Amino acid sequence: MATKVNIRDVAKAAGVSVTTVSHALSEAHSSRVNARTVEHIKAVAGELGYAPNRLASGLRNQRSRILGLVSDEITTTPFAGAMIQGAQDAASEHGHLLMVVNSGLDNELERQEIRALQQHQVDGVIYARMFHQLVSAPGELNGLPTVVLDAATADPRMSSVVPDEFGAGQSAAELLVAAGHRRIAMINNEDDIPAAHGRLAGFRELLVRSGLELAEESLVAAHPSTAGGREAALQLLSGTERPTALFCFNDQMAMGAYQAAGHLGIKVPQELSIVGVDNLELIADALWPGLSTVALPHYEMGRWAVLKLLAELDDPDAARIQEKITCPLVERESVAPPQD
Amino acid sequence: MATKVNIRDVAKAAGVSVTTVSHALSEAHSSRVNARTVEHIKAVAGELGYAPNRLASGLRNQRSRILGLVSDEITTTPFAGAMIQGAQDAASEHGHLLMVVNSGLDNELERQEIRALQQHQVDGVIYARMFHQLVSAPGELNGLPTVVLDAATADPRMSSVVPDEFGAGQSAAELLVAAGHRRIAMINNEDDIPAAHGRLAGFRELLVRSGLELAEESLVAAHPSTAGGREAALQLLSGTERPTALFCFNDQMAMGAYQAAGHLGIKVPQELSIVGVDNLELIADALWPGLSTVALPHYEMGRWAVLKLLAELDDPDAARIQEKITCPLVERESVAPPQD
Repeated sequence: MATKVNIRDVAKAAGVSVTTVSHALSEAHSSRVNARTVEHIKAVAGELGYAPNRLASGLRNQRSRILGLVSDEITTTPFAGAMIQGAQDAASEHGHLLMVVNSGLDNELERQEIRALQQHQVDGVIYARMFHQLVSAPGELNGLPTVVLDAATADPRMSSVVPDEFGAGQSAAELLVAAGHRRIAMINNEDDIPAAHGRLAGFRELLVRSGLELAEESLVAAHPSTAGGREAALQLLSGTERPTALFCFNDQMAMGAYQAAGHLGIKVPQELSIVGVDNLELIADALWPGLSTVALPHYEMGRWAVLKLLAELDDPDAARIQEKITCPLVERESVAPPQD
Repeated sequence: MATKVNIRDVAKAAGVSVTTVSHALSEAHSSRVNARTVEHIKAVAGELGYAPNRLASGLRNQRSRILGLVSDEITTTPFAGAMIQGAQDAASEHGHLLMVVNSGLDNELERQEIRALQQHQVDGVIYARMFHQLVSAPGELNGLPTVVLDAATADPRMSSVVPDEFGAGQSAAELLVAAGHRRIAMINNEDDIPAAHGRLAGFRELLVRSGLELAEESLVAAHPSTAGGREAALQLLSGTERPTALFCFNDQMAMGAYQAAGHLGIKVPQELSIVGVDNLELIADALWPGLSTVALPHYEMGRWAVLKLLAELDDPDAARIQEKITCPLVERESVAPPQD
């Protein structure tokens, strides 16, 4: 392998001293060098592929321009990519790099990783969870500017961003009510988490506002997987007064509802309309017919978290915010008017 | 927010000089300080949450213990997480951090990111693609130790790791032949990529070795999506002598084959056995019945790439290797003996 080009190589090739190269390539000191010489040195440095040593300049100005992103379950969730990409894009646009570390839900590893990020002098941290939950950030983050991503926190020093779960439930209900449905059921997640409570509350609120109700027998909670959705849908669809429309907690459960409908010979959307949440392309786009669903704004949350962190780095006294981001409806082919 | 604890704070709290703290907390120099004083200083540093400045020590020993991972499509692929987790785990176990950057297929952004990684003095880079392909790594990587992940390269300076595509095709064929199938078809990816050629070649080789053949009308190439698999399966299953078993290029296409079978009233696995490739949990586990599939070793490839890079950093003259990693078969419920 070729060895790294260093400042001495540039000085030699440009026929100037190391100090002159250093000044010429420094924003703070380039005025000390004749402008034509600066041009010449920059051209030589470019030809040689010389990259100034940011470690050294990081020491000088006490900003490394590196942000850390600490996540828990990057492997097992399909959402990690979009959040990280959103954070990455916002960081790049503002001249920062994003250093991603994953704990795999291991608290001790997470503490080690945060200490390692501190040793590498990150300017601040995005503390990301892979589903909306309430967290208390680890003590290791004390003193490090931190924004919490896809989670809420009681810590008044930290801003946070989550999806508007209530609004997601409202949007799903609105789509089904507008299509003319009146016998509407919901398959919720059985876990005691903000997304389950928020989506149900928003869904119910819009039904009530539309003069409908969510009857007790029309609400089933199950494991938030395809198999969980399938079992719950088989139960809901086997009654005598079966619903004409189903709102599922997520796209995986909606896939289970498609399987149940297929098993029972019920056609989607002619005999059963289905709406999910997530807009997981691998499922929502792949189902036949395509699944209408409320998208979770993972990319946008990732962006928001980085932009807020950068704003707080520039102004440590900036107000801390608990942000909720709107979940847009993505319509495909799984909703139609009820047959009568 | 509290400000960062620095070495002066530790010196003051411990009642010693800054130099003594520096020596006490340095592996190379702690012998210069009385052992009890070292203990005391470490205890004080721990209480204050002081993290030694790795930027500075990185300058001294010229190793930052940061590895870069440059990827292309983290958002749109479900595989990125497993590769990154494998790389991350191997890096953590060896005291290194992994800095992940994504280009989103934008070549100019990728070059900028690599220059930024160089400015942050990464020791080496994992150059990752999100599906097996032939790449020429960008010139910006010249001089930076690099291992290519999930791609092959003609560059003799770089080791690389890819899945054993030929073996994956063999495993799928072996499973179907062992179950007793003789009328076996394949739905391949229409793209001209190593995975399509390798899986087909391995599949065909094992059929021929078993005294069977892959007839021309039993091989269809399509877009590697659920819709592509569905269309191809509808074509293959509508003939008079329809196959009793189908090998699909990936799990998404296999999901399409399930949809086609459902549409035509053909039962899986009783009337049609299906095998995929990927072991994408979101699909393979969710299909009903569960999909038997050949797993792509993303996690293992990520680990291998980091371990090889670390070995080459320790010994720059280590032999460069083009590694192929075995793809293990994951059996679920989609394969049964043919009815006759």
